[in-house]
Amino acid sequence: RGVRLGVTMAKSKFEYVRSFEVDDSCLPHCWVVVRLDGRNFHRFAEKHHFTKPNDKRALHLMTKCAQTVMEELEDIVIAYGQSDEYSFVFRRKSNWFKRRASKFMTLVASQFASSYVFYWRDYFEDQPLLYPPGFDGRVVVYPSNQTLKDYLSWRQADCHINNLYNTVFWALVQQSGLTPAQAQERLKGTLAADKNEILFTEFHINYNNEPQMYKKGTVLIWQKVDEVVIKEMKLPTEEEAQETTVTRTRNRPMPLYCDIMGDAFWKEHPEILEEES
Amino acid sequence: RGVRLGVTMAKSKFEYVRSFEVDDSCLPHCWVVVRLDGRNFHRFAEKHHFTKPNDKRALHLMTKCAQTVMEELEDIVIAYGQSDEYSFVFRRKSNWFKRRASKFMTLVASQFASSYVFYWRDYFEDQPLLYPPGFDGRVVVYPSNQTLKDYLSWRQADCHINNLYNTVFWALVQQSGLTPAQAQERLKGTLAADKNEILFTEFHINYNNEPQMYKKGTVLIWQKVDEVVIKEMKLPTEEEAQETTVTRTRNRPMPLYCDIMGDAFWKEHPEILEEES
Amino acid sequence: RGVRLGVTMAKSKFEYVRSFEVDDSCLPHCWVVVRLDGRNFHRFAEKHHFTKPNDKRALHLMTKCAQTVMEELEDIVIAYGQSDEYSFVFRRKSNWFKRRASKFMTLVASQFASSYVFYWRDYFEDQPLLYPPGFDGRVVVYPSNQTLKDYLSWRQADCHINNLYNTVFWALVQQSGLTPAQAQERLKGTLAADKNEILFTEFHINYNNEPQMYKKGTVLIWQKVDEVVIKEMKLPTEEEAQETTVTRTRNRPMPLYCDIMGDAFWKEHPEILEEES
Amino acid sequence: RGVRLGVTMAKSKFEYVRSFEVDDSCLPHCWVVVRLDGRNFHRFAEKHHFTKPNDKRALHLMTKCAQTVMEELEDIVIAYGQSDEYSFVFRRKSNWFKRRASKFMTLVASQFASSYVFYWRDYFEDQPLLYPPGFDGRVVVYPSNQTLKDYLSWRQADCHINNLYNTVFWALVQQSGLTPAQAQERLKGTLAADKNEILFTEFHINYNNEPQMYKKGTVLIWQKVDEVVIKEMKLPTEEEAQETTVTRTRNRPMPLYCDIMGDAFWKEHPEILEEES
Repeated sequence: RGVRLGVTMAKSKFEYVRSFEVDDSCLPHCWVVVRLDGRNFHRFAEKHHFTKPNDKRALHLMTKCAQTVMEELEDIVIAYGQSDEYSFVFRRKSNWFKRRASKFMTLVASQFASSYVFYWRDYFEDQPLLYPPGFDGRVVVYPSNQTLKDYLSWRQADCHINNLYNTVFWALVQQSGLTPAQAQERLKGTLAADKNEILFTEFHINYNNEPQMYKKGTVLIWQKVDEVVIKEMKLPTEEEAQETTVTRTRNRPMPLYCDIMGDAFWKEHPEILEEES
Repeated sequence: RGVRLGVTMAKSKFEYVRSFEVDDSCLPHCWVVVRLDGRNFHRFAEKHHFTKPNDKRALHLMTKCAQTVMEELEDIVIAYGQSDEYSFVFRRKSNWFKRRASKFMTLVASQFASSYVFYWRDYFEDQPLLYPPGFDGRVVVYPSNQTLKDYLSWRQADCHINNLYNTVFWALVQQSGLTPAQAQERLKGTLAADKNEILFTEFHINYNNEPQMYKKGTVLIWQKVDEVVIKEMKLPTEEEAQETTVTRTRNRPMPLYCDIMGDAFWKEHPEILEEES
Repeated sequence: RGVRLGVTMAKSKFEYVRSFEVDDSCLPHCWVVVRLDGRNFHRFAEKHHFTKPNDKRALHLMTKCAQTVMEELEDIVIAYGQSDEYSFVFRRKSNWFKRRASKFMTLVASQFASSYVFYWRDYFEDQPLLYPPGFDGRVVVYPSNQTLKDYLSWRQADCHINNLYNTVFWALVQQSGLTPAQAQERLKGTLAADKNEILFTEFHINYNNEPQMYKKGTVLIWQKVDEVVIKEMKLPTEEEAQETTVTRTRNRPMPLYCDIMGDAFWKEHPEILEEES
Repeated sequence: RGVRLGVTMAKSKFEYVRSFEVDDSCLPHCWVVVRLDGRNFHRFAEKHHFTKPNDKRALHLMTKCAQTVMEELEDIVIAYGQSDEYSFVFRRKSNWFKRRASKFMTLVASQFASSYVFYWRDYFEDQPLLYPPGFDGRVVVYPSNQTLKDYLSWRQADCHINNLYNTVFWALVQQSGLTPAQAQERLKGTLAADKNEILFTEFHINYNNEPQMYKKGTVLIWQKVDEVVIKEMKLPTEEEAQETTVTRTRNRPMPLYCDIMGDAFWKEHPEILEEES
């Protein structure tokens, strides 16, 4: 029979290794941002035949994953996504997992990644998933409302610049038959106004009329939503249960495709930055 | 047409927010360990009807995910898993992503999580996956071979203690009909020898004969494996291609179910701790 | 002659050790506080016959050192001292030494310590300095004006509580002849009101009339001061130089002994927290 | 009388600010190095008329301060100094102040700085100290004996290179009458051998015969020293006390001026790197 004598003792002898763990809790009273980026998504997009410059299915799947992250994790007040990246903002006074940065970023990254595979088929009906993708993440801490808003504005400005570029680039490739190298050369040194001009004169595309989701990215905030649920109910006086529809108001992370660089958005949604004291 | 004038300028105005990112690179010349733990896996196991005390399918799926992590990421020299956790050890002198802890842990966590959903059906044929699981991760840095070995020994001692406890606990519940509370009460204060005794006298189970994977957990190390590939080959003199089997030697992360607390394992596999200079 | 061949080469071989240094820069846009505490000052006070409960010479020397720190270092906007401790607040947007925490705290600690010995004789005329004292320091980062003010209030509340206690304690020892242990026992469990009462009824001391410096500690802020300098001046038409007094307005760290827990102080000195943009 | 009601309560309300302090303890089982550098010592040396290229008084004062640091603080096993810098190595398993980096570096910096002023007059008899100097410090952590030895070798190689340069530079200035700019120009691009050659042919200086302290810097290690103390002793049978000299063996930080880049030093003093288990 077992000669396990001493394994418990052995364990306690080894337990000193826990002291090598580092306390990585985020500075209190600060906004904690986790940003994810798809790993090697250039290759991933090619292998899965993403449409260019934007693949609607891929963007909606990203947003579905971000919504799952917001529902499953605690204290996320706003998220912003574009292309293959998503940023999640935890409320200033969150004490979730004692504000440990490693918990925040790995739980966001793993929940997002497992959701990506789980919900893939809902968005890519005819395109099987060939391999499980990876996402890298980081934590950044912002001490004030202004620095947080500037962070989100930075990501949205990045979205705009990339999308304008990609819209022209792929028009040149797909419609004018340029090679990628030729398209790149053509766009070298052009300003935003030049790109708008090329789109309009050569392709009759008014960039302003492009879909908001492509131009602005996706903002997720909590909003009250009426949800209709079908319930079986049996009144005491009745013999058989009856199906009834019940409407419930629920808080859900809902997508907006709007400007967040100006003041209007933040004035309209003051609750995002206001901390319950 | 577009009045995008100034978005590029706006972006550069916002770019100062990058300076809030922190350099979290791991101390050079140290072993970097990433440990993952399933989030709320008690509930996850119940919902998916895991067998108790060990679910072979779940353990093999965990190992499949760990193998994928080792194949897809760089510089992992050994991994160790038990229950719903897995530890990955990056080589001492790895300079992958400049040793940034956030990259290490989020890429491990996301790759593991997406693989868990991706490969689920290969292991749980009759049990659909109900929701995408999360995993939390952390990074710990060990400065010497001794501290690294002690870390892995600590996890294996933990595996042994938990598995012995769970084996008796579930025998009491499943075979003797005790409630979980009664089983817990029965085991309170018992030593390893007592638990072995209960298993033997009451259930005729010799704990020593329990499967090694349950008692020791799973060790993954790189090993040369002969892989047979079927190839179509057409010799110049032939008209039609012929299928030929080609044997290739590949390096693969292979599972072992052995003791890593003693010296024998490390003497047998000196290449794990020896760094190419 | 020298066989120094290769020392330069050797140095470059060793230079990799610099990569073990860690970037410890403080989060941007936050207040950086360095607090110093005298090391073993209980013993130091005894050996140098400090008067109890407060030694005016020692407190003024501390303040002289803090003024030197503010003059010699950059970007300190306010300092607060009591007993054997002093806190220094660097302005939110300081970029001194790239905000490296180690630079901040070691330069404060060393400048304070060298000044303590250098100016000792100006305050302790008859008491020679027996040995060079040590001070430990730490850096704490505060993200908002409120948290910074709360930090300073915390130190001032600490000053009040300790000073009230010490005033009664030493009255009991010095005037009533109790042993320290008896005095401690007597004060066990007493509230502030009780201590005021003892002071008033037993020693005819109205605590309110105690010196402000003892009750409030010392606040150092920059203030315009007229300084009279004697200058030798020779006009072209004159033969000999003449001494003239010239008055110059200089910015100097000046002591205040006032409440900083309420709003009044901050309203009177809005420039302390307002950052030039 | 006092209306101090509530200050204790106020203090507890403010105490949350302590949670903004960060745990900065050094990775266990690693060598902890604190390096100090004089602040603006170029200017300090000029103002106090240091002899060039080396001022013996200044170097000995630095070493006296380093010895005081080693005597007053805990767990320093070796120190190395050159020019206006000194490095202190804490033993691998030191648990002094829970290995907090801020404690290590501020206590070293402040003790060194206060000693510098305290002992100044013992070394600079005719040169009064004009102002209190500052020192900046940093903490670096080394995981292995090899990396620690390479760190110390790096500093000694730096000493050699600088001293050879300075020896020639000041010979050109002081003996050949070159301006500093001319001397700098003359030395541009020269190798170690060239500098040795200039010294020998132009100034008849064999660099090898220069003082070891200048060429190698100062190594401080603990060594047993016999110390003679005069004691008054009165035997029971005697009437008057008599002065007796008593010899005691004490452990003291003693200076060596030797090579620490090769193996010889470490073989001769194995106790420095060997940790008592």
